[in-house]
Amino acid sequence: MTGVLYLIPCPVSDETAISEVLPAANKDIADSLDYFIVENVRSARRFLSKTGISRPIDSLEFRELNEHTTSPAEIESLIAPLLAGRSAGVISEAGVPAVADPGSAVVELCHKRGIKVVPLVGPSSIILAVMASGQNGQSFAFNGYLPVKEPDRTRAIKRFEARALSENQSQVFIEAPYRNVKLFETILRSCHASTRITVATDLTSPSQFTVTRTAGEWGKVPMPDFAKRPTIFIIGK
Amino acid sequence: MTGVLYLIPCPVSDETAISEVLPAANKDIADSLDYFIVENVRSARRFLSKTGISRPIDSLEFRELNEHTTSPAEIESLIAPLLAGRSAGVISEAGVPAVADPGSAVVELCHKRGIKVVPLVGPSSIILAVMASGQNGQSFAFNGYLPVKEPDRTRAIKRFEARALSENQSQVFIEAPYRNVKLFETILRSCHASTRITVATDLTSPSQFTVTRTAGEWGKVPMPDFAKRPTIFIIGK
Repeated sequence: MTGVLYLIPCPVSDETAISEVLPAANKDIADSLDYFIVENVRSARRFLSKTGISRPIDSLEFRELNEHTTSPAEIESLIAPLLAGRSAGVISEAGVPAVADPGSAVVELCHKRGIKVVPLVGPSSIILAVMASGQNGQSFAFNGYLPVKEPDRTRAIKRFEARALSENQSQVFIEAPYRNVKLFETILRSCHASTRITVATDLTSPSQFTVTRTAGEWGKVPMPDFAKRPTIFIIGK
Repeated sequence: MTGVLYLIPCPVSDETAISEVLPAANKDIADSLDYFIVENVRSARRFLSKTGISRPIDSLEFRELNEHTTSPAEIESLIAPLLAGRSAGVISEAGVPAVADPGSAVVELCHKRGIKVVPLVGPSSIILAVMASGQNGQSFAFNGYLPVKEPDRTRAIKRFEARALSENQSQVFIEAPYRNVKLFETILRSCHASTRITVATDLTSPSQFTVTRTAGEWGKVPMPDFAKRPTIFIIGK
């Protein structure tokens, strides 16, 4: 029997208690495991200790999977314990593993090797933002990060807007928080006045806000207070 | 002061305990409310009673928002209590409100009227399927239901495949469970042998499975056992 790969979400905000964003049952799964494939060992240890698992953290085995893990042989070695019957948990730095982070490489290999994959429930800023946006939730696309340099950046925004308008598909994307203000200025400059723009900041934390206005309306009110705060952007019809 | 609109997820499977898929804190929010905007009153009452809220269910006010709620005046009347300072919870039939269900109309109006919207964490089959698929989670699109009739149906599948291949964007869609088998046959007939197809069935329930294979590999193994079971499909590169 091979082991099971559990995808274990963690909070997206440091100001949130575990019980606010994670089902109680996730702890029992984490507690049944002694092998973890993680984006960052330090934050995974901190998360597991906050979760209150009963095993001593030092008795657990951690292996890192992140942007430095690129060779197929390394990823193959990460799942060797699963082939030998040991189950594992995948934990990313924030939110749900394998969405907008490197975890999917190990999941992909598990499917090739016939290893069962079980995703657990937790906070995804993407889905929370779509829920709270009032934009179309019957059709939406997550596009990851925008290109950093111009003219690619403005071009990407215009392409998202064109697809949002022609297909009525909400276009979701993210940015490094310190670039939020500049990005938002570029969005307002690039989009039609009637295009709806959502800003969803600090999701799940007490300071959270999600606001949707047309680009024209945003131009008439003060800039949202989101400098250096984690934010999801959505362009919609 | 206006009230707050809380988006309250519920389980996606009848076989799942509340504590397996919902954070404990969601109950406290539900318990603070006496007004609910719901897709179906009967299932919302059942969910709230399963959640163990302390108020008698019969003391709560329920208003329905579903495919029959189409007039702007009706939606306006749903949020009148919020404008008067009363908070409300939105509950859909399964999973997270306002994604792949009618809830977003009321959220949209709340943004227009300056009412705060707060999304709570819960199970989204879409995000769980993307996590567990091993397909690209840096870029993915949810497309809702496919057209039912041919040739539109095959055309939609080929369009999803073309976008999955050219943009490396995973294409997620759903179908009424009794049509899963026929849909899967059409997918295998329509896609290239090397295109990866994910089937994610009964997510969050003990019987769940998520399997990704190329269309060519799927053709050589028995059909997955998903007849009449809730399933998410993903086409990817």
